[in-house]
This record gives sequence, C-alpha cells and structure tokens, in this order.
Amino acid sequence: MSAPQPPADEVRRWDSSKVKETGTKLKALGRHLVCELSGCRPSLLSDINGIAAMMIEAAKAARATIMESAFHRFEPQGVSGTVILAESHISIHTWPEKGYAAMDFYTCGDHTDPWLACEYAAKTLRATSVLATEFKRGIEKSGGEFTHVLTRNHNVLSA
Amino acid sequence: MSAPQPPADEVRRWDSSKVKETGTKLKALGRHLVCELSGCRPSLLSDINGIAAMMIEAAKAARATIMESAFHRFEPQGVSGTVILAESHISIHTWPEKGYAAMDFYTCGDHTDPWLACEYAAKTLRATSVLATEFKRGIEKSGGEFTHVLTRNHNVLSA
Repeated sequence: MSAPQPPADEVRRWDSSKVKETGTKLKALGRHLVCELSGCRPSLLSDINGIAAMMIEAAKAARATIMESAFHRFEPQGVSGTVILAESHISIHTWPEKGYAAMDFYTCGDHTDPWLACEYAAKTLRATSVLATEFKRGIEKSGGEFTHVLTRNHNVLSA
Repeated sequence: MSAPQPPADEVRRWDSSKVKETGTKLKALGRHLVCELSGCRPSLLSDINGIAAMMIEAAKAARATIMESAFHRFEPQGVSGTVILAESHISIHTWPEKGYAAMDFYTCGDHTDPWLACEYAAKTLRATSVLATEFKRGIEKSGGEFTHVLTRNHNVLSA
C-alpha cells in the first residue's frame, strides 16, 4: 500500500544545519499543524488499515519519509496512530461516533509541506470542516534557548 | 522499567461521553501541550533506551495508559519516538547537538494531567528551560464542528 522507501538505515534525520534564514523568514527547525477534522465519514475513522494507508500517503504528500509507525484500534471504536518521519511525525486520534479526528502534522525541512499532508488526510477522511493552527517550532534564541511561534491561528480549509 | 499495566485488550479508550461541562470550563476532549525543552543533556537526548524509559514514566506521571510505542534512533544522532496512550499521545524529537527536544503531551480525560508528564520529562532530560503552549482540543461547536483554543501561550516552567 505504499511506494518503496529507502531502507531505514540509509535515511538520515533531516539535518538541522541546513536551516537557512532567508529574508524576514523565521529560522525554525519545523512546522507543526494542530488540526481538528470534523464531519468525517465514521466508517473511515474506524478502519485501522485504511487509516494506516492514509497516513503513509499523507506523509508522501508532504514529501516526508516514514521511519516507524504504530497504530491501535480501540473497542468499541476509535483508532489512534502515529507515523514517525525522518522529519518529525504525523498523528491521528479518531472519534467515529462524532465524525471527528484530531490530527497533527509536524515536519522539518524546507523540502516538506505539512499542509499537503493535512489536505490529503481531510480529503481521504471526507472531512467537511478542517480547523488548523500552525506553529513554527525550534526557533533558536540567544543563549541556546528554543521557542515556537504561532504563525496561523484557526486557519480553515475549504472542504 | 515500568509498573504492570493492564493487558491492552482490557483497556478502553477514554470515553468521550464522560466529558462534563463544569462552571465556566470549556467542554473539551483533551489538552495538548506543545513544548520546547532547551539546555538538555546531550547524552540523554541520544540514548534511545533512556528516552523510551522516560516516555513510559512520563505517561505514568500524567496518569495515562500506554497502548503502543515506536522509537527511532537516527545516525549520527537524534531520537524520535511516540507513545500512543488510551488518552492520546506523547511524542519526542531530539537534537542532541543543540541540547534541544521538541515534545508534545496530549491527553484526554479529567483523570490525566499532561503538565505532570512535561515536568517529569524536563527533569529527566535535565532541561534548563521549558516553553509550553497549551491547547484545549476537541471542543464541539454547534453543527458537529470541532475546534481548539489556545489556553496558555508560552508558559515557561522553572528549571
């Protein structure tokens, strides 16, 4: 259910030394979307295999590389899962009885785009509403301290 | 390295029907802390077994129940991992060369407290600075739409 990926030991974590400060852009290690997907089709939110396949495709949509994954199906319903990426992670928790999925799309590196993963997931789960807040994470201040900033609050994707 | 946990098939996901609206508190399914831990001891951030053990104890500190876990050690350094909880998840991504760990503590239910997991992790990794932003997630609006709200922005824990 996924295209061939390079063997895990050939994949190196996305290298933080590649971060470039360009213009007025914040120098951040990654972007993290905190997303609420509503109006999803309940049967899709209960299907652990379908969700695992969706997560793999979502990672590919974001141009990220999957290193590990873990999924769990709850009784009587609900699925939780994570794919660990070379560039951070994507996670999901579903409430089929409410048509609701809480998802996170967190990717590092300029080559990735977590919004593409979010859009893929929303489409696949047949979400009618997606609310997303975006952070830039891993912003190094003076003294070696790291912070994050909220860059888009309550961004609503069209269904 | 962990106290006995009930077998996975006896554990049910935290039940959303238990959510109570009390006083002026928002009726939310869960709380999610987005955290940046700085000044951590680099050797601790490279030790995949130590990090896995820390995550188990952090989940216990939050009074959460672990269902699944996945960890990956990158070359030349860095560890990523997630523990999937009956109540959502805890995740970590480490940059030992920067003494930095990006962590998420996301728990559902009134019986859990993600701040306790955050404090445990910060102490164990010897963080000198912890910056955390808290969301309440899974807030049901009229029409079956879900949203989140930012409840604490850039909360700094003392070292």
